Amino acid sequence: MLGTVLHGPGDVRYERVDDPKILKPTDAIIKLSATCICGSDLWPYRGFNDTSKPLHMGHEYCGTVVEVGSEVRTVRPGQFVVGSFCISDNTCPHCAFGFQSSCRQREFMSGAQAPYARVPLADGTLVATEELPAPDMVPHMLAVSDVLGTGWYGAVAANVREGGTVVVVGDGAVGLMGVMAAAQLGAERIIAMSRHETRARLATEFGATDIVAERGEEGVARILDLTDGVGAESVIEAVGMEQSMSQATGVCRPGGSIGYVGVPHGVSFDGQQLFFRQQRMLGGPAPVRRFLPDLMNRVLEGRIQPGKVFDLTLPIAEVAEGYKAMDERRAIKTMLRVED
Amino acid sequence: MLGTVLHGPGDVRYERVDDPKILKPTDAIIKLSATCICGSDLWPYRGFNDTSKPLHMGHEYCGTVVEVGSEVRTVRPGQFVVGSFCISDNTCPHCAFGFQSSCRQREFMSGAQAPYARVPLADGTLVATEELPAPDMVPHMLAVSDVLGTGWYGAVAANVREGGTVVVVGDGAVGLMGVMAAAQLGAERIIAMSRHETRARLATEFGATDIVAERGEEGVARILDLTDGVGAESVIEAVGMEQSMSQATGVCRPGGSIGYVGVPHGVSFDGQQLFFRQQRMLGGPAPVRRFLPDLMNRVLEGRIQPGKVFDLTLPIAEVAEGYKAMDERRAIKTMLRVED
Repeated sequence: MLGTVLHGPGDVRYERVDDPKILKPTDAIIKLSATCICGSDLWPYRGFNDTSKPLHMGHEYCGTVVEVGSEVRTVRPGQFVVGSFCISDNTCPHCAFGFQSSCRQREFMSGAQAPYARVPLADGTLVATEELPAPDMVPHMLAVSDVLGTGWYGAVAANVREGGTVVVVGDGAVGLMGVMAAAQLGAERIIAMSRHETRARLATEFGATDIVAERGEEGVARILDLTDGVGAESVIEAVGMEQSMSQATGVCRPGGSIGYVGVPHGVSFDGQQLFFRQQRMLGGPAPVRRFLPDLMNRVLEGRIQPGKVFDLTLPIAEVAEGYKAMDERRAIKTMLRVED
Repeated sequence: MLGTVLHGPGDVRYERVDDPKILKPTDAIIKLSATCICGSDLWPYRGFNDTSKPLHMGHEYCGTVVEVGSEVRTVRPGQFVVGSFCISDNTCPHCAFGFQSSCRQREFMSGAQAPYARVPLADGTLVATEELPAPDMVPHMLAVSDVLGTGWYGAVAANVREGGTVVVVGDGAVGLMGVMAAAQLGAERIIAMSRHETRARLATEFGATDIVAERGEEGVARILDLTDGVGAESVIEAVGMEQSMSQATGVCRPGGSIGYVGVPHGVSFDGQQLFFRQQRMLGGPAPVRRFLPDLMNRVLEGRIQPGKVFDLTLPIAEVAEGYKAMDERRAIKTMLRVED
């Protein structure tokens, strides 16, 4: 089949790759209903991560099971499934504790920007729907796999509560999903930091009550002003850069919580500063598997439409243009159509 | 009166100082029943903090109110009171949120290694008992002021729960109080890291179920071994050095919590490492005021005897020897008798 391979910074190709096949008896092969490009795919695309070996891209997926290994028990061919970008057995002590993204058998999904993909540890990783969802549900189900799941984890890690005040740093797809998660979790006030009109509009549609366009120290001052000088009890950091992290710590009240879900690049903390700020911090790759059943239900019941975060849809053969559009911030998030 | 002044590293003197007096209408003057030396007093004593100006030492206190300013409403002369080492108004938004140690009017107590002391913001800071406690209660009440309150905060910040597993890094007075707090909060397993026999014995008396004498990587390996390779869900870090912090992060399970209450000295964190470890971190000066009424009750009801952490008692005139004994680790914590 054809699949998406990154050969070096800026060099994405849709080219011939091996067909995925069952390698272990716990694997499943799925036919993707759609796939997409993640903000984190831009790190290697921009040369921040090692690209000396070709990378088989894509870790967000939903689709139909076409084949399962001999030990797979909970999903069967023909079922529609969603899985997390983190492969997990869902039985080890870390999974049982709700941190499937630190599973003892953790792998990171790859190769899903393709018509077919192999999913290891299928029983632990995949969640099947009772019926095949309508086609218009596909973008929303796809979003659950990572971008919504990650925004949701950010909100949970930031201890978002009913009636609370939340600041979301970062207006990328994950930040926007953080806004949606905060609204679903009952936050009363959701302040989104964004200076891009279309993103700010989407943030508002997803539940943001305030938009702050200022950045850096000005942005921090503006938010302190909006919160009577107190700061927010919950802050979702969805970027991973020094400046965004310092905005997050700048607007979080003492005793508040920061959920940081952008993989930190070039960020470090001074222990004594962290101590005196007295902010609860929790980050990490999102344990999406913990949230999957709930989030899939919210989608199927029509309570949320996270697929609205895809503002560009391309045939998968044009995946390179999808990366380019996101890199140049012309698109928030690109969905890739996978035709027969 | 005479009071304790640090003139430079290792140079503690009990010498003539100004009598404390009401400077603001919200102040109170107390006559100390006893006072003590804090592990954190050793930072300037050892030259880690600036000592270019003489420091009036002492921030742990309990005693009898002798005078109050004109605006003080909740305490009156003759009452026995305990206060936090953090002065707070107990009404600002941070106080209302339970983080009195980040009070908008926060001050750090000083000058309490003396027969009398001025306590600013008396209404917010001091808690009075209904009756004068028996003399044998004084060491326990004194311990509440900082060392127990700080250990307690460490346990709360580490999310210690009924039936949980806790590791305490640091066998100083705060670490030992962390053990006591964890036991009171219902932890089932409390692993104390200690290689000093007397401290380990006290840890066991306070509720530790396991003692690990190994340090560094060996210590981490031993604890992972004791926890089936999982690590602890709660870790109290009560030292503040690079090695102790790395032990704490080494033994905390993904999704677990680290409450760090030793003021970090020379500690820094790499953002990406912190992210992938997926540990909840909360530190800071303890909001002891939040816990004071509860902890004072536990003492008065005879449920805890935190004063056992004082293994050396000296007349206050011998305060210099008290510092020396703690610096040389001959004493865990020194109580100073304040005679009439």
